[in-house]
Order: sequence, then structure tokens, then C-alpha cells
Amino acid sequence: MYRTHTCGALRPKNINETVTLSGWVQKSRDLGGMTFIDIRDRYGITQLTFNMETNPVLCEKARQLGREDVVQVRGHVIERSSKNPNMPTGEVEVTVSQLTVLNKSKLPPFTIEDETDGGEEIRMKFRYLDLRRNPLKNNLILRHKLAIETRKYLDNLDFIEIETPYLIKSTPEGARDFIVPSRMHPGEFYALPQSPQTFKQLLMVSGYDRYFQIVRCFRDEDLRADRQPEFTQIDCEMSFVEREDILTMFEGLTKHLFKSLINITLDDFPHMLYDDAIRLYGSDKPDIRFGMQFVELNQVLQNSGFKVFDEAELVVGINVPGASNYSRKQLDQLIDFVKRPQVGAKGLVWVKYNEDGSIKSSVDKFYTPEQLKSCFEIAKGKPGDLLLIMAGETNSTRNALNVLRLEMGDRLELRKKNEFAPLWVIDFPLLEWDEEHQRFHAMHHPFTSPSGNTIEELNDNPSAIKANAYDLVINGIELGGGSIRIHDRTLQEKMFELLGFSQEEAESQFGFLMGAFEYGAPPHGGIAFGLDRVAAVLSGEESIRDFIAFPKNNAGRDVMIDTPSAIAEEQLTELKLKHDKN
Amino acid sequence: MYRTHTCGALRPKNINETVTLSGWVQKSRDLGGMTFIDIRDRYGITQLTFNMETNPVLCEKARQLGREDVVQVRGHVIERSSKNPNMPTGEVEVTVSQLTVLNKSKLPPFTIEDETDGGEEIRMKFRYLDLRRNPLKNNLILRHKLAIETRKYLDNLDFIEIETPYLIKSTPEGARDFIVPSRMHPGEFYALPQSPQTFKQLLMVSGYDRYFQIVRCFRDEDLRADRQPEFTQIDCEMSFVEREDILTMFEGLTKHLFKSLINITLDDFPHMLYDDAIRLYGSDKPDIRFGMQFVELNQVLQNSGFKVFDEAELVVGINVPGASNYSRKQLDQLIDFVKRPQVGAKGLVWVKYNEDGSIKSSVDKFYTPEQLKSCFEIAKGKPGDLLLIMAGETNSTRNALNVLRLEMGDRLELRKKNEFAPLWVIDFPLLEWDEEHQRFHAMHHPFTSPSGNTIEELNDNPSAIKANAYDLVINGIELGGGSIRIHDRTLQEKMFELLGFSQEEAESQFGFLMGAFEYGAPPHGGIAFGLDRVAAVLSGEESIRDFIAFPKNNAGRDVMIDTPSAIAEEQLTELKLKHDKN
Repeated sequence: MYRTHTCGALRPKNINETVTLSGWVQKSRDLGGMTFIDIRDRYGITQLTFNMETNPVLCEKARQLGREDVVQVRGHVIERSSKNPNMPTGEVEVTVSQLTVLNKSKLPPFTIEDETDGGEEIRMKFRYLDLRRNPLKNNLILRHKLAIETRKYLDNLDFIEIETPYLIKSTPEGARDFIVPSRMHPGEFYALPQSPQTFKQLLMVSGYDRYFQIVRCFRDEDLRADRQPEFTQIDCEMSFVEREDILTMFEGLTKHLFKSLINITLDDFPHMLYDDAIRLYGSDKPDIRFGMQFVELNQVLQNSGFKVFDEAELVVGINVPGASNYSRKQLDQLIDFVKRPQVGAKGLVWVKYNEDGSIKSSVDKFYTPEQLKSCFEIAKGKPGDLLLIMAGETNSTRNALNVLRLEMGDRLELRKKNEFAPLWVIDFPLLEWDEEHQRFHAMHHPFTSPSGNTIEELNDNPSAIKANAYDLVINGIELGGGSIRIHDRTLQEKMFELLGFSQEEAESQFGFLMGAFEYGAPPHGGIAFGLDRVAAVLSGEESIRDFIAFPKNNAGRDVMIDTPSAIAEEQLTELKLKHDKN
Repeated sequence: MYRTHTCGALRPKNINETVTLSGWVQKSRDLGGMTFIDIRDRYGITQLTFNMETNPVLCEKARQLGREDVVQVRGHVIERSSKNPNMPTGEVEVTVSQLTVLNKSKLPPFTIEDETDGGEEIRMKFRYLDLRRNPLKNNLILRHKLAIETRKYLDNLDFIEIETPYLIKSTPEGARDFIVPSRMHPGEFYALPQSPQTFKQLLMVSGYDRYFQIVRCFRDEDLRADRQPEFTQIDCEMSFVEREDILTMFEGLTKHLFKSLINITLDDFPHMLYDDAIRLYGSDKPDIRFGMQFVELNQVLQNSGFKVFDEAELVVGINVPGASNYSRKQLDQLIDFVKRPQVGAKGLVWVKYNEDGSIKSSVDKFYTPEQLKSCFEIAKGKPGDLLLIMAGETNSTRNALNVLRLEMGDRLELRKKNEFAPLWVIDFPLLEWDEEHQRFHAMHHPFTSPSGNTIEELNDNPSAIKANAYDLVINGIELGGGSIRIHDRTLQEKMFELLGFSQEEAESQFGFLMGAFEYGAPPHGGIAFGLDRVAAVLSGEESIRDFIAFPKNNAGRDVMIDTPSAIAEEQLTELKLKHDKN
């Protein structure tokens, strides 16, 4: 037996017991005649003592140990003379009588501490060592608990977890598929699922009523900073439901997760129309932990001779409370900030409403103080505030002001890590017009139901149609999204037509689903959450990477195992494939 | 709101309530002035009544409904005049006042009943309809509960579920990998995991101590009757453990699953040496619900002039209790049975120990009754029994007699569906010699630890070495298997050498794991269960296919969605791949 207790288990009640522990050498200190070694496992750290006077051979052996060596010790639990109240085992220590080195360790390339000295690259290469550090360990434990609590909650409400296949069919709609060549059917391919969308809909047709699955999804996209080619979804679907049924159910799940995992009680989630989110925050995932809603100023500021505003489609600002004392340097920084290519604005107009009631702005020569003051009135600003205004084409201006608003939220420390502001964004547009390809795309996906429209209305003005779709947003981060689905063959066919599918294409790619709709498909809808994302938000973190045990880097590569990599020529031959080097 | 209750909810306490139900039309009966319709959902069936006298329009509408139409009804709960004690809702019915057809159904291609009239092929094509039938629904619900109970049990014992990647590296050892071309790195490939073996070992190196994962695994093998290219494992690993720790832990899990899911209390599992299993049952997964152990009869039956026995490497028999009254025709059937190509035996010798104490056999001219009677003594047979004897090369003879033993178990109805006989088979050989390629294969996998042997012993006689590996077998079916792993770089290198890897090959394929062993790898071991298999065994079923929502057929094809299938030429071009039709 390798151990009687873990390294986190011993307490004063164990004093005088003889115990066996196994673990890793965390650190060791030689203090005159004594050697102290901290031994670590997943559960904690226990202090071991070796006495040079009473057992010099053993003590000498202990002094040879290096960081991360794996050892087994047998010894006697005693009360510590200098207790450590910061450690659960801090009231005791173990006087060792037997020491076995189970496995030596080379010196790790970085320190296994909460704050390590290792850079990103070396830590990815030695991920198995990075995973020993507490921050990553705590992330993976939180993720595990998140999955457990999700399953418990949904199981209690009669949801059934059903596994759907990973070897499915490639469908060009949406993102790019990873494909898997079939050896038994050369020239044919499986694809890895971007989500189990069609399968969960089929399960509704099968009558399973309440389905969920914590499931891996795959997208072969060029990776942005925080994207992974494989990621995990909490995927859910319900039958005989309307939008409110889904929102209520999954608001319940979200509240349960926040309460059970981080002891945060969330209030009821407000609903915000997509159009309002765009108009007031310039984003379909607004961070509503703080105000600074957009105010549109075309009426007040156009036609006063300031060409930038006069020619703009939209003049829009945010009132930054208490920032009228921003220095010239700080304001210039903000202007530089919005001019960065990532934001892409041409400039920024600022207006100070000084504490003494006077107005000072970067456009004083175009506007009277009264004009500018009326902007503050519209924005509900007061003396001491700063108005930041941008202008130009509507969408890009809103996008840029959204970035600036979040930046101001950060600067004013209004985006608090331990504060959570959830909301439902509803009534998304059904379709997006793609200028480049002169066609519509489904904003959510082609299975999303239009919101109360008839097939005839779809024809008349497709771009005005709202989808019965919804997103759950917390702190400016989209945690999940879903929709009520189409369950009628004719409407689904119409939708594919709008998206530019020929009848043959629709039939060959989604004929199975439309066929299923003819055999008694119930009204249904669902939602999917990004599990990695939920775990990160619960921890107040932005990046999902350290909530995934073995993530890929931005080039889609696992540098630890070195994949993707070349394969044996015979493997390609068996698949009747050739690498085409041109 | 689509419903106030499910179709399985109504009870006498609901009498006089006005309710709304939604579901599928299961069947309808017109009885004079009344129409009765059974409406079905996942939760049950409720009887609806329509009265031609009081509401002829509605009743007429109800009479138009077809099987599997999706309807919503509003009505009044009343007590049934003729109650149905076989249905939970059988004491009430709903007098309908409002009927909405939510979706019409075409006539299904087969009946949605427990015993359907649909053949295998049509049911696979319309899997979403087959999944409506109770037997499949119950299978998927059992599978869900199995996963929930597994997670609950392991979570309570400090196991953490950690997700490992699906896009990993191809390693030619073992079965064939499915590969996934990388677009970002043309000419390079990911592979889908055959199991998370190396990742779970790395998690042990990382100190996670107790890991599990319910995880999909992939093998591109030519499919036998009951194999699937993707299947689900309950994958587990523990640190600082010896074999007994693992067996105790997972015997506990197995007992918990049987108790909580089908209310069966299992006794402690016996351990059987691999060598004994082969010697006594001709199989490494013996069905020990019944006896008929092999008895070796070389000593008694050789050198009496019967050439078939005299020239055989092994003469071995089973005593079939109470079968001495088998007719000549029945015995000939058995002989035909073992001669089938699937069994491949050349023949079968039978010896009857008649109730009157006399002996009759197919080899009476070679042996005295005393000789034959002594065989029964060795086999612990008695008057009324039948001895069946086979002879030849040891392995093939054992294989054939194993098949015959199971057949006799079936014929004598000794393999009872509701009886469960688990056992651990231990001490497997470490290596198998592959005559064709003149090399060793790892019997379990290359990470399996030899059983107490030194590196030197590995050199001397590799094929005699036992592995520290174990299988859990129930009723002749292997539910899971595992081993204590190698955690030392030198031993792992030696193992790869024995398996014919060059140092470069070992390094390029498994260098990351051997590297990890140098940074404090703890002793560790684990096990993996086939989840699909466990679900089938719990249900007393042989085939796993109907425990998978959307399985592939024997050609690896999903005929419902029609995959694998051709992909767009551009997809291949992007991957810089070409289909090589030669």
C-alpha cells in the first residue's frame, strides 16, 4: 500500500498515529540539525521532518532529494511547534522513519508554484508540469464540478443525456468542417460535428422531449486568440416549448451553477432586444455591469459646420462619469487607442463638463457651450463628466465606440471580477446579408425559426425578419445561445431557398432532417452553452485556454505531443489519398 | 404553453381539472358514438375521448387523425368507466374540448410498437422513428442513468472527470487510426484517439491522482458484427496504487451500478488466473454462470490405438450433466455444429454414462468401458451425464471446445439472462508472438507494466512474462480491462525495444510520455470499461447497437444521414489532398 493518508488529510486528531504518505517534494529546508520537506499531492501539502541527530543516515538521504522527486514516507504524526494556520495540515508534521524514492525527477524547466517563472511556450511544451500548479488544478476541478452540477440539475428535471455521433456528414453551411477520410469507402469522408444540432432535433422528432449532452464540437477555423479547434458545449433541446420556457429553464440552470459553484445569487435576468443592444451598447453582448449607454447626437451636433459630424451617418457618444479631469495626455491616449487598427476609428471628440459648470471640448470652434451642454442633458451627464463622441458609418462607429466603452469601464474599474450581470439578448435578425457573395447567411443557423412570420412575409423582406433566437450574455461574454427551431418541412425548404441552396443541395445535405419533419415533428427549441467559457466566467477569467487540460496553440498545434504531424505513407495509401504539394 | 401535464402524469387526484396535453397519436378507436385516442409522449400514454353526440365537429376532426400525428388537446380529466390497471394513467381519461394538430405525420414505414414489423434496414434508415419504440427508449434511458450513476459514484470518491483532446497524434501501434487532415499544416494530420491512454497517464504525472472520463474512442477496423467505429469508454486512472487497489475500487463501482440500475446485489468477484481461464474454459472471458470446466484427458485416452487422440497435442472434454439421453440425431447435430467453419473442429467424440451405469460412446472400439468411466471420474461426472471430447492442436482445440461449452450452456438453459457471474481475470501474458510478422505485440498495450519482473528477466524469456493486467468479465463478456502502468523511462524504452520499435520511432511517437516519466511520474494504473457493453449486459442483451442512439452499420455507414459521403472538391483542395483512384 502506497499510502494510508493523502498529503492533505492529517489533522491534530491523527497525532501519535503512524502513517504512510506518498507525493512530490515541493520544497526542502535544512535548519541546522533538522531537515524539513514539504510533500505535495492533489489534496494538499504535509510537512515532513528529518533529524540529523537521531537518524543521520535518513536525514542525509532526505537532503539528497530534489524538487518534484516522488517519494513515499512512513512516520509518526506529531504536533507542530510552530503551527501554520494557512494550511489545513498546518497543525501537525510527520517525523519520518522510512523514506523510499519512488521516482526521481529532473529539475523542472520552470517552478511549480502559483506564480511560475515559465513562459507560455515552455509551459505548453511541458503542459503536464504546468498542470501541477494550483491555478490550473483549481480550474480543472472547477470545470469538473461545473459538469457534475449541470448534469445533476438537468437529470433532476428529466433531461436525458444522449450521445450523438462524432463521425457525421460534411455540410458546407456555417464554419469549415474537419473531415475524416473513410478507408472502407475510398473517396468518401466523414466530418467531425460543429455541433450535434441536427441530431438533437432528430431526438426531438423521436420524442425524447428533454435532451442534453456535454459534447465536443469541432471547427476548422483560423484561430483567433481565444478559439480552440475543439471545444465543449452543454447542448440542450426541449420539445413542446416556446421561447419563454427555454429562457426560464436555462436561467434556472445558470443560477444554480453560480450558486453551487461560487456561491453567487443571481437576480432574474433582464431581456434586451438585439436592436436595443446594438443601439445602446454597439454590441450584441453588452457588458451591463456599468452604464455609459450610447446616446445618439445627430440631431444636436449635425449641421453646425463640423464636417466630420455633418457627413457622418451616425454621431454617437458615451458619458463617462467623473472623468472631466482627464488630462490632455490621457485624452490623447484615448484618441490613439481608438485609432489603433484593432479599433479602426478615425478620431474621437471629447467634451468636458467641468465641475464649475463650464464646457471644454476638442470641437469648441464648431459648437456653442449650450449645444454641447445639451448633449450632456441627453446623456444624463452632470458636472464632472466627460463625453466621448465618435461619428461615421453606423456599424463601424458603433463597433468602435463599444470597444472604447469597455476600455473606459476598465479604466474606471467598473468591470468588477466578482460582479456578474447576466441578460438575455432576444429577437436577433434571422438573416445577414453577405455583400461579398451577394447572398444571405443564417445569423444563428438554418434551422432557426423566424419569429412569428409567415412564409409569405419571408419572401417580401427577408432582411427585416427577426429570428426566434436568444443569447445568454454575462459581463459582455456570450455564454450560450439558441433558438426555437423550424419543425415544418415547407418552412425549412423555404429557409434553404433564402440561403441560396438549390433544392438538390438542400435535399442531399439535410434531406434526412426534412424527411423527419414529415413524420410528426413536435415544436421544439434549445440552447447550447460553451462549457469552457462558462468555467472561465465563473472564475472571472477571460481566456478559456487554462480551463482545457490539453489545449492547442493559436496555430492549432499541440506542441507537447507534437501534432498535427506526418503520418506513414501506407496510411495515406490505404485511404487512397495523395498529398498534393502544389 | 403547449401543455400543463405530460402524457404520463394524470392520476385520480387530477379528476375535474382542465388540462392541456401534447403528444403523438398512438392509436385511435371508434366505438359507436365515441372516439378514443391514445396520446403518447416519452412519459406515458393518456386516453382521450371525443363524443359524437355532444361535439360532432370535434369528434369528426379527431377521426381524421392518423398514427404519429402531433396534437395538442385541452380537456377535462374524468374517471374512466373501464380502468386499465396496466397503465399508470389507466384510472382516468380526458374529455377533449379543443384539438389542435401541431404537425401531421405521413404513415410511418413500420409500426411504432414494442414488437415492430420493420426490418433492420428500414429501421436504420428511419432511426428517428425506431427510437420512438419503447425498447430503444428504455435502452437510452438506462444508458443515461448508467453514466449518471458512474459519475456520481466516482465523484464521491474524489475522481475528477477531465476531458482529453480528440485531435491527437497518429501512432501505428494497436488498431488503425482514423486520421484528420490539417488545413493549417498541409501534409500533416491529427488522429482520433483509440483511447485517452497516454493523456490519462500524463494526468497522473501531473498529480491529478484520480481521473475518469466517459469518452468517445475511435478505431478504423473492419467491423465485426458487434463493433462500432466509435464507441464510448468509462476511462479511469489512479496514482499510488497496486493492482488490488484498482480491483477493489472498480469492483465497488460495478456492484453499485448493478444495485442502483437493476437492483441486483453482486457477491465479491472471484479472481482467476489467465492461464487457468484458458485451461479450464478455453477462453480469457469465461462464462462462469455454469460449470462444465474442461478436463484434460491425454493421460487416460492416449496410446490406446485411436489415432485421432494419439496424435493430438491436447485431448480435452466437458461433462454435460443430464445429457446422456441425447439422441443420435442430437449428437449428430453437435458434430455438425463444431464442424462449421466458425468453429472449425474436425470432429467430436461423445461418451454417454447411462443412468443404468453402462457406457456408450462413439469410440467404443478403441476403449474399454472402464477407461471411459475413468474419464467421468476425472470430470466428476455421474450416471446420466454426457462427455464431449475434442482433440488436436492445443489453442484451436480449446477455442472450439469453448464454443461448444457455451452452446451446451445455451441448450441446457444454464446461461440465464437475470443471473450475473462476474470475475476478474488476472496475470495476462505481457506479449503475444506474431508468427506472420515475426515480432511481439503487446497483449494489452505497450504501457502495461510487467508483473514483478526485472528488466533483465525481460531479455531472457519475453514470452513467459506476465503483465500486471486484469479484465473484468461478466457472463462471458469482457466489460473492462486495465493494468498497472510502466512509470519509469528505462523500462518503457525496454518495452518499446521488445516490441520492435527503433529508438527513433519510440522517441518520435511516445517521446512526450517518456519525457514526462523523467519529471516525477508516480506509480499508477487504471482501467477502462466499454459503456455501450455495460449497458447491454445490464439489460441482458448481447448486441450494443441498440444502446447507441445513432450507430453505424457493419460497413461503417450511417444510412440515415448517408455518411461517409463525397465532399466538395474545394474541401480537398484546401487540404492539399487528392483522391488517388488507382
